[in-house]
Amino acid sequence: MILILKGGATEQQIDHVIQRVESLGLKAHLSRGTFRTIVGIIGDESEIVVESIRAIPGVAKVVPVLPPYKLASREAHPESSVVDVSGVKIGGGHVGLIAGPCSVEEEDRMHRIAESIAAAGANILRGGAFKPRTSPYAFQGLGEEGLRRLRDVGNAHSLPVVTEVTDPRLVELVAEYADMLQIGARNMQNFALLNEVGASKRPVLLKRGMSATVNDLLMCAEYILSQGNPNVVLCERGIKGFDPATRNLYDVAAVPLVQQLSHLPIIVDPSHATGKPELIPACALAGLAAGADGVHVEVHDCPEVAKSDGPQALLPEQYAELAQQMKSLAELLGKTVSPLPETTA
Amino acid sequence: MILILKGGATEQQIDHVIQRVESLGLKAHLSRGTFRTIVGIIGDESEIVVESIRAIPGVAKVVPVLPPYKLASREAHPESSVVDVSGVKIGGGHVGLIAGPCSVEEEDRMHRIAESIAAAGANILRGGAFKPRTSPYAFQGLGEEGLRRLRDVGNAHSLPVVTEVTDPRLVELVAEYADMLQIGARNMQNFALLNEVGASKRPVLLKRGMSATVNDLLMCAEYILSQGNPNVVLCERGIKGFDPATRNLYDVAAVPLVQQLSHLPIIVDPSHATGKPELIPACALAGLAAGADGVHVEVHDCPEVAKSDGPQALLPEQYAELAQQMKSLAELLGKTVSPLPETTA
Amino acid sequence: MILILKGGATEQQIDHVIQRVESLGLKAHLSRGTFRTIVGIIGDESEIVVESIRAIPGVAKVVPVLPPYKLASREAHPESSVVDVSGVKIGGGHVGLIAGPCSVEEEDRMHRIAESIAAAGANILRGGAFKPRTSPYAFQGLGEEGLRRLRDVGNAHSLPVVTEVTDPRLVELVAEYADMLQIGARNMQNFALLNEVGASKRPVLLKRGMSATVNDLLMCAEYILSQGNPNVVLCERGIKGFDPATRNLYDVAAVPLVQQLSHLPIIVDPSHATGKPELIPACALAGLAAGADGVHVEVHDCPEVAKSDGPQALLPEQYAELAQQMKSLAELLGKTVSPLPETTA
Amino acid sequence: MILILKGGATEQQIDHVIQRVESLGLKAHLSRGTFRTIVGIIGDESEIVVESIRAIPGVAKVVPVLPPYKLASREAHPESSVVDVSGVKIGGGHVGLIAGPCSVEEEDRMHRIAESIAAAGANILRGGAFKPRTSPYAFQGLGEEGLRRLRDVGNAHSLPVVTEVTDPRLVELVAEYADMLQIGARNMQNFALLNEVGASKRPVLLKRGMSATVNDLLMCAEYILSQGNPNVVLCERGIKGFDPATRNLYDVAAVPLVQQLSHLPIIVDPSHATGKPELIPACALAGLAAGADGVHVEVHDCPEVAKSDGPQALLPEQYAELAQQMKSLAELLGKTVSPLPETTA
Repeated sequence: MILILKGGATEQQIDHVIQRVESLGLKAHLSRGTFRTIVGIIGDESEIVVESIRAIPGVAKVVPVLPPYKLASREAHPESSVVDVSGVKIGGGHVGLIAGPCSVEEEDRMHRIAESIAAAGANILRGGAFKPRTSPYAFQGLGEEGLRRLRDVGNAHSLPVVTEVTDPRLVELVAEYADMLQIGARNMQNFALLNEVGASKRPVLLKRGMSATVNDLLMCAEYILSQGNPNVVLCERGIKGFDPATRNLYDVAAVPLVQQLSHLPIIVDPSHATGKPELIPACALAGLAAGADGVHVEVHDCPEVAKSDGPQALLPEQYAELAQQMKSLAELLGKTVSPLPETTA
Repeated sequence: MILILKGGATEQQIDHVIQRVESLGLKAHLSRGTFRTIVGIIGDESEIVVESIRAIPGVAKVVPVLPPYKLASREAHPESSVVDVSGVKIGGGHVGLIAGPCSVEEEDRMHRIAESIAAAGANILRGGAFKPRTSPYAFQGLGEEGLRRLRDVGNAHSLPVVTEVTDPRLVELVAEYADMLQIGARNMQNFALLNEVGASKRPVLLKRGMSATVNDLLMCAEYILSQGNPNVVLCERGIKGFDPATRNLYDVAAVPLVQQLSHLPIIVDPSHATGKPELIPACALAGLAAGADGVHVEVHDCPEVAKSDGPQALLPEQYAELAQQMKSLAELLGKTVSPLPETTA
Repeated sequence: MILILKGGATEQQIDHVIQRVESLGLKAHLSRGTFRTIVGIIGDESEIVVESIRAIPGVAKVVPVLPPYKLASREAHPESSVVDVSGVKIGGGHVGLIAGPCSVEEEDRMHRIAESIAAAGANILRGGAFKPRTSPYAFQGLGEEGLRRLRDVGNAHSLPVVTEVTDPRLVELVAEYADMLQIGARNMQNFALLNEVGASKRPVLLKRGMSATVNDLLMCAEYILSQGNPNVVLCERGIKGFDPATRNLYDVAAVPLVQQLSHLPIIVDPSHATGKPELIPACALAGLAAGADGVHVEVHDCPEVAKSDGPQALLPEQYAELAQQMKSLAELLGKTVSPLPETTA
Repeated sequence: MILILKGGATEQQIDHVIQRVESLGLKAHLSRGTFRTIVGIIGDESEIVVESIRAIPGVAKVVPVLPPYKLASREAHPESSVVDVSGVKIGGGHVGLIAGPCSVEEEDRMHRIAESIAAAGANILRGGAFKPRTSPYAFQGLGEEGLRRLRDVGNAHSLPVVTEVTDPRLVELVAEYADMLQIGARNMQNFALLNEVGASKRPVLLKRGMSATVNDLLMCAEYILSQGNPNVVLCERGIKGFDPATRNLYDVAAVPLVQQLSHLPIIVDPSHATGKPELIPACALAGLAAGADGVHVEVHDCPEVAKSDGPQALLPEQYAELAQQMKSLAELLGKTVSPLPETTA
């Protein structure tokens, strides 16, 4: 890490900086420029150390040199990780296609949707049982009943299932039913929840928060990894932007950026990123072309009766067309859409 | 609510829209323009209804007419609410001055800081015992030991205390020690947590999330209010912006905006909003001038040894000077800084 | 357009609204809801009318129904436009590949770069002669000498050329040398300049401003179209975002969005969007996959001696590899990279 | 400036970096850490040098140490500048109160508005004659006729006048009539225009662009200063934000930030920042409390017939009340609202 001292820092301040740095067990290397004095520091760059140093009188700026995440970084782990979701691989050339309704719906409908997406080539079924809703008066999900139904429908169609968990007290319950635990964008920095899914053995789908930098996202993955769960798949699902024409701002450049900084797989979610069905196919293909390890799309056979987020779902026939295009594109890129597992647990 | 249909919506689509609207128990009022057909809808405007309607084929846009929050809205409750924090009033002309270190520190230091802020005129002591940190390797707070110390120090100086709660499982514990429960920016949309503090009887300090609109903030207040806890104080603490010159973007216009939309008190936190001690006094005064019902400032007597967020703390002597200016400004605005309670619980 | 009146608007206010609307030559259609009165308005929706109406006492909100642009809208012109840049087609299935250095460089180097990009499959050469620089002390371009050199090099390699114009007084001069006039992001709303290029006969490459919505971009295209120049190609080149990890935020969803709203071609510029050579190939492919009608990439054979923006240029060999991938992807999408014209003017 | 080399930079790359740095006439100072090699550079930090160095193979990051502006920086000019607008002082404790309609209106109305704002205590009259409008179909201003009228009305009420100039070809004409030239937000980085107003002798009101950082704003001031015109007043008028509840996002923290980095005066414009009359008074007071050297407010006596921007104007009686509050607040802060000049030119 590098300290830039304020213009006009006194000798006394410089001495104090050196002394403080050394009292933290670090080595300081002084360099006096014409206008500014610089102190190079060798050693630990954890957040608490950076903060302490930035608060020393006379310090203008602290420039970290190393990334603050370790387990998530590609430097520490050069090979791309492959996450196995009950037999479906994501990462390292294996493409995951996650599809399904926003909320778990009635049983018949779930079977119809699952059948259609499996036929189209999707390999993981999604559906929310515990829904984080901006309004306390909106539908909050079916709870355990929804988990059970999702599991049954997944089994019937040989599709592993992913569903969101929103409360640390529910991680154990959700992990009983689901093959993969989703952390939603609003909970990306819910550290109590991250610690719980980190302690679980289930693969985790970690969605990027709406105001999270890529660095923030990787730090949250680090929480999960540091608890001993290495099976983290990241997801770009749109961040906050100023143009009301789309629901969120789809940051497709985050895909290659994450892949340079980290070994973890990253998928895209054009449904939440755009909120507009007519933009989803183009943005799904863009994500794959950018190198994404998978694509998450909401699918519903009658959006106007969906329990939530109907307006952003594709119809099964639209999804089938898109899935065909995604397979061709994956092939062009030298990747494979992962096949369904023989049987799911 | 108003539906704008797509250009070229067919008669069949229009009929289906009317039918769907009526099947939801609402009344539709059709209006055919030269270029577009409009449907006015009278009745419930909850989120699920808006979503369902937006997903009907042929609908281009849904424009809600009423705010989606009810209990939080000023329409429903024209008089400004006053929240009482163990004897210290916030709102309706009463100014709360919250000050203290980011994390609860060692006992001696806590007493020194508490003494200095009380002497300066602050009326609530803050300090974190459970810290949400972006790094899993950073100091996570002292836990219950921190709560106990904060309580003791508050009692010794007749200062009610506020501290953050980050996990729904900890609400009961924190409420035993604290006069006010803080929900941090990263947890603003942690709905499980909001429901728990809503079920508690303690006043809640609800900080605005970094990507939250004012509408989002009021919807989160609605979660708490709808659980039966009316004692919510909102806090503008900076949102995500594009200029790295400050830590966050201080949205001071949110203060008068919230006050028009809602009866709830709103305070400002220039420490987190700017992240720069040299900007805090100007921004604290700006918040008060904009009409804020209080100001939250981090104070530490030796920022370079602070357990967290040292770089953004004011020194006690800087805070004393600022508090003096805030008192003069409050007076000019016809407001009063709330006095300390005779005794705290 | 639809007016939503304030809750509690008086009969007198309602009458005044109707009267004002009619005095503007428009027809008003009143609809009284339980909580709000709505006025539907039939007729002109130009900006000045919207503003005037929004300022009438008692009006809470004005919701436009029609897009504010006419010539640029797809409703008015359903077929996709094809812009011909001296023989190279952009739009309607024809892909433009624009490449070259940020600034026009010395003659030898320009020839080397032009030769390499033509061999790779690019069909338009770029290079800046008048550079808008954030610093008054930075290199400002070679001026007319640069224009002449760009023209000569383009001719030598049968490549039409595009270059930026930054000053309305220079449009005529630049149009003498260039096949296409670029309006840079910082000048997107320089209306004096838009009017001048609108009066010119040259095709225009209009880059999206860093804080421009898609609607803003289309309004600026409307300026040019309304002056009688129909040859406008739009360009997504990144908007302002909060994550410093990339130079700008690449809004790839703007590509399909523009294509739904407008008939004008739109290309992408991953060089400016990301500012990082290592992200450019992935983002170029993402743009094409999203449906872009072309890709603009900066290429330099020795970035460290580039007169400007060296850090974001691809090397010729990197560009050649990318161009190959772009051609394969275009083919998969049923599009063709436009061939070089037989001869350029 | 400091270079951080990539992890794994080779000896050959390090040698090449040193050689390139020295070939630019700079001195390099090498420092090898455990994980990264750092090169401190002493000498010129202009933009072109930074870019060239960032493009050298093996360089991961360049950290500038000095601000890129010189004439605008407070380091170079510690005392706060006072700008004299034909007898009205702005800066250094002198408060400018600029008020008037968005566009120059008919003569009678201009006199009525001017009279009312002068009586309220405003000291500069504003009014647009050349209007930058997002729509080519909107009212574009009265042109020279508007300039003449503004001048006459200003003279009649002893108010200096400020008006926007949007085209470098018009600077001379506008400077004949106006006491102060306004550069609007959309033209902040119109460098041709900045150079022309820099060559003029008139004071300049430079508004911050909607996506401009404070650093960008100061670089644009540097353009004007470097042309020999030292009379620059900056203006915070709201930047692009994600919450549609206000027109722009009022960045009040930019006021103290600019005052630390620069000696130039800075005023605020809550009219454009919020776009909502009901928020203007609170935000005007917030700006003053944050230390602003002046406040710019749009005033119109019948907003619904305003030629432009009616919805964000205060009525004269609202402005009079606000002006009274601003005077009291200025007094509390030890500042003075500048009196009207005896006569204006």
